[in-house]
Amino acid sequence: MRQNMSPSRNFGSEGRQRDQTLNDVEAYPVAENGLLHRRSFLKKGLIFAGTSSALASGIEAARAAPLTEPPWALQSGDPMPAYQQPSKYAARVIRTNANPDNLPKVTQTRTPHHLMEGQVTPNGLHFSICHAGVPQIDPDVHRLVIHGLVKRPLMFSAADLCRYPMVSRLAFIECGGNSAPLFSPEPVQGTAQDLHGLVSSAEWTGVKLSTLLEETGVDPSATWFVAEGGDAPHIDRSVPLAKAFDDALIALYQNGEPLMPGNGFPMRLVLPGFEGNMQTKFIRRIELTSEPAMSYYESQVYTAPLPSGKAYQFYFVCDVKSFITFPSYGFKLPRTGLYEISGLAYSGTGRISKVMVSADGGKTWGKAALQEPVMSKAFTRFRMPWRWDGGPAIIQSRAYDELGNAQPTRSQFVAARGQYEKVPDIKAFQNHHFNAVVSWGVDSNGDVKHVYA
Amino acid sequence: MRQNMSPSRNFGSEGRQRDQTLNDVEAYPVAENGLLHRRSFLKKGLIFAGTSSALASGIEAARAAPLTEPPWALQSGDPMPAYQQPSKYAARVIRTNANPDNLPKVTQTRTPHHLMEGQVTPNGLHFSICHAGVPQIDPDVHRLVIHGLVKRPLMFSAADLCRYPMVSRLAFIECGGNSAPLFSPEPVQGTAQDLHGLVSSAEWTGVKLSTLLEETGVDPSATWFVAEGGDAPHIDRSVPLAKAFDDALIALYQNGEPLMPGNGFPMRLVLPGFEGNMQTKFIRRIELTSEPAMSYYESQVYTAPLPSGKAYQFYFVCDVKSFITFPSYGFKLPRTGLYEISGLAYSGTGRISKVMVSADGGKTWGKAALQEPVMSKAFTRFRMPWRWDGGPAIIQSRAYDELGNAQPTRSQFVAARGQYEKVPDIKAFQNHHFNAVVSWGVDSNGDVKHVYA
Repeated sequence: MRQNMSPSRNFGSEGRQRDQTLNDVEAYPVAENGLLHRRSFLKKGLIFAGTSSALASGIEAARAAPLTEPPWALQSGDPMPAYQQPSKYAARVIRTNANPDNLPKVTQTRTPHHLMEGQVTPNGLHFSICHAGVPQIDPDVHRLVIHGLVKRPLMFSAADLCRYPMVSRLAFIECGGNSAPLFSPEPVQGTAQDLHGLVSSAEWTGVKLSTLLEETGVDPSATWFVAEGGDAPHIDRSVPLAKAFDDALIALYQNGEPLMPGNGFPMRLVLPGFEGNMQTKFIRRIELTSEPAMSYYESQVYTAPLPSGKAYQFYFVCDVKSFITFPSYGFKLPRTGLYEISGLAYSGTGRISKVMVSADGGKTWGKAALQEPVMSKAFTRFRMPWRWDGGPAIIQSRAYDELGNAQPTRSQFVAARGQYEKVPDIKAFQNHHFNAVVSWGVDSNGDVKHVYA
Repeated sequence: MRQNMSPSRNFGSEGRQRDQTLNDVEAYPVAENGLLHRRSFLKKGLIFAGTSSALASGIEAARAAPLTEPPWALQSGDPMPAYQQPSKYAARVIRTNANPDNLPKVTQTRTPHHLMEGQVTPNGLHFSICHAGVPQIDPDVHRLVIHGLVKRPLMFSAADLCRYPMVSRLAFIECGGNSAPLFSPEPVQGTAQDLHGLVSSAEWTGVKLSTLLEETGVDPSATWFVAEGGDAPHIDRSVPLAKAFDDALIALYQNGEPLMPGNGFPMRLVLPGFEGNMQTKFIRRIELTSEPAMSYYESQVYTAPLPSGKAYQFYFVCDVKSFITFPSYGFKLPRTGLYEISGLAYSGTGRISKVMVSADGGKTWGKAALQEPVMSKAFTRFRMPWRWDGGPAIIQSRAYDELGNAQPTRSQFVAARGQYEKVPDIKAFQNHHFNAVVSWGVDSNGDVKHVYA
């Protein structure tokens, strides 16, 4: 899965001529093996000092030269499209597809986290899983029915829903199987996209499910609802009714525009913090019930088998988690000096409270800067300056949320949840809800590998 | 400019059979002519009451019927693309183009605010203005030079910039000419896209300009910088140096992915709150100077001529502003009853502190709900329930920011800044930085027009 990647996330820069290397001066360490305080980059006192700055440690900025006039500076450009598309020079910033021939099976496309920055996932790159291709649903035909243990069964079109009050919220959505390769006893080599690309975060706008249940009324005996999708597989999942009155949403818009077809157009269930499979896309039915349906995906697939041979019957929440996106597998650090470690943290139970970063495999830790806004159940970008001295390093991140939950170390996680092996006596594998610390090893050549530490 | 639009923003629903109309019951008025408190939609006590809810006032939700199996429920869907595209059923949610034949002149594409919700502008729909088409710039060739009154002139590639610490921030960008039709003495009929589509808001990620100026060092005599674009027009604009040390950014990423070609790929200047023309796309040069360049776009175009015949020499900041996106020109309310008034507010000087909404042309006002997160110099979505009684109504919004700035009424604005006419003795028109209150008139047929009030 190794890809040809530049040292700088998106933009290739190898082989250029340099005529100036700024010197290395003081910085502010916060942990061993080169982790630095953010003020190392913010030494305003140096501006007029005329000396080389801490910032420039190992970064070679070229002496200014006369600007050239490349072709795009000498001629008019292209017509402006009605719907913008990425530059042809960003053509590798795309989703990878596990089923490119659209064979009759599940299709997964993964978000290229190693080539991205910030904390919004743009709609073109939001991960998607469909069990029978991407349906093209006419919103004027599609209906959502709410029935079962309600006072008044009702049916809503997308246009009906637009009459109701709307709310927007940032929320990550993660497949329960994201990071599944990390259940392997040996580290699988893959990019942050390959290993962790089944999670994305967007702004979802729609109608609170609780608003619609006020319309239908709820029978006191109702304790669950079963949500069913409108595409051919009609996947159904059971959700505790309490979630409906907490923060469940029937979303119509994704980052401001109508939902993408692969993310549920014209309407989907959003259950912030719950596993993606429950957040029913193309939703057409919500049936209120007094017990769970025990459907295929909740009884056969998304349970959490344990080393003991038992299993958690239901495992809905995506626990607190983080991973570093740069540097990560596939990058090569071209020279010693300053880099910025950057990654994503999120928790299904609330806001990220802090992210700790280590460059020595977890012996010492420094606190990373968190990007605002830090929102509940949404991506939080963390960043930390790091000076690579050319020696081996193992970089890790560990996230904590506002409820005090800590991302487990790999050894803690494996002790509790097991590794990838068949569980005795039941037909199940440990392969869901991996949320342990992820480790990237940097060797003395600057190559970054996936390691366990 | 009138378009064929459904009553519900995006989703058409006319002509369907209804067999149940829920009744109208109590609500909580906050201003005249039907403005309601948000709790009118949140009456949990009604859930088990078995009576019709306040919510349903005038909204006809159909009695549930057996679900049908349309074609997409009976067959596999399409292959999953590497980069997602909108549904064919959302084909009208696109930018309009003032220069579709790409003639050798400026091209403007406008964001379809009347068909959107939430407060992120997705990258496909971000407005764009280019003065000679959209350049296709190779990021491995493109360079940014910082020179002039600096200690060490330096040259940066995109890959160089990726070595530096990054920050992300939400920021709106607005063309100084946005809403220019509202300088007309008579209201121009057009959608929110037609009239106000030259503003968008996104998450921008990049390197602080101050970080790069710490690298180059700054000569004490520098008070301005001149930014120059790398596409053929090489537009240059002067910016007070203080902005560089406040919040100026060299952005490389837009909502998580590399910049769109029409928004500056591979790098652009972001000056949060300043007019869009200054936020140089495809930036290739920053020259530190001791005075402004008095370039074409700052001396001939983006000045603000006044009724007196004088002009503001420089007018950089986009003042506090708001407009309602639904209902707005082109929509037709199909029946009386509850609607949600929804719109966007933003200020170039800080956070939105409140948005007041009127349904009686400004006689009485109610306070709208603001969508979190409310971020400085970024879009804030506001919403307010409204019960239309079938009579004429004039709906307006008025935004305030944390510095106490209030969006002017139209009469206040015209008194200070004039309307669209040639200013005596100078070759200039009033046509920039319009930020007054916008009024939409609803007639007894439910048709929505642009009016002055």
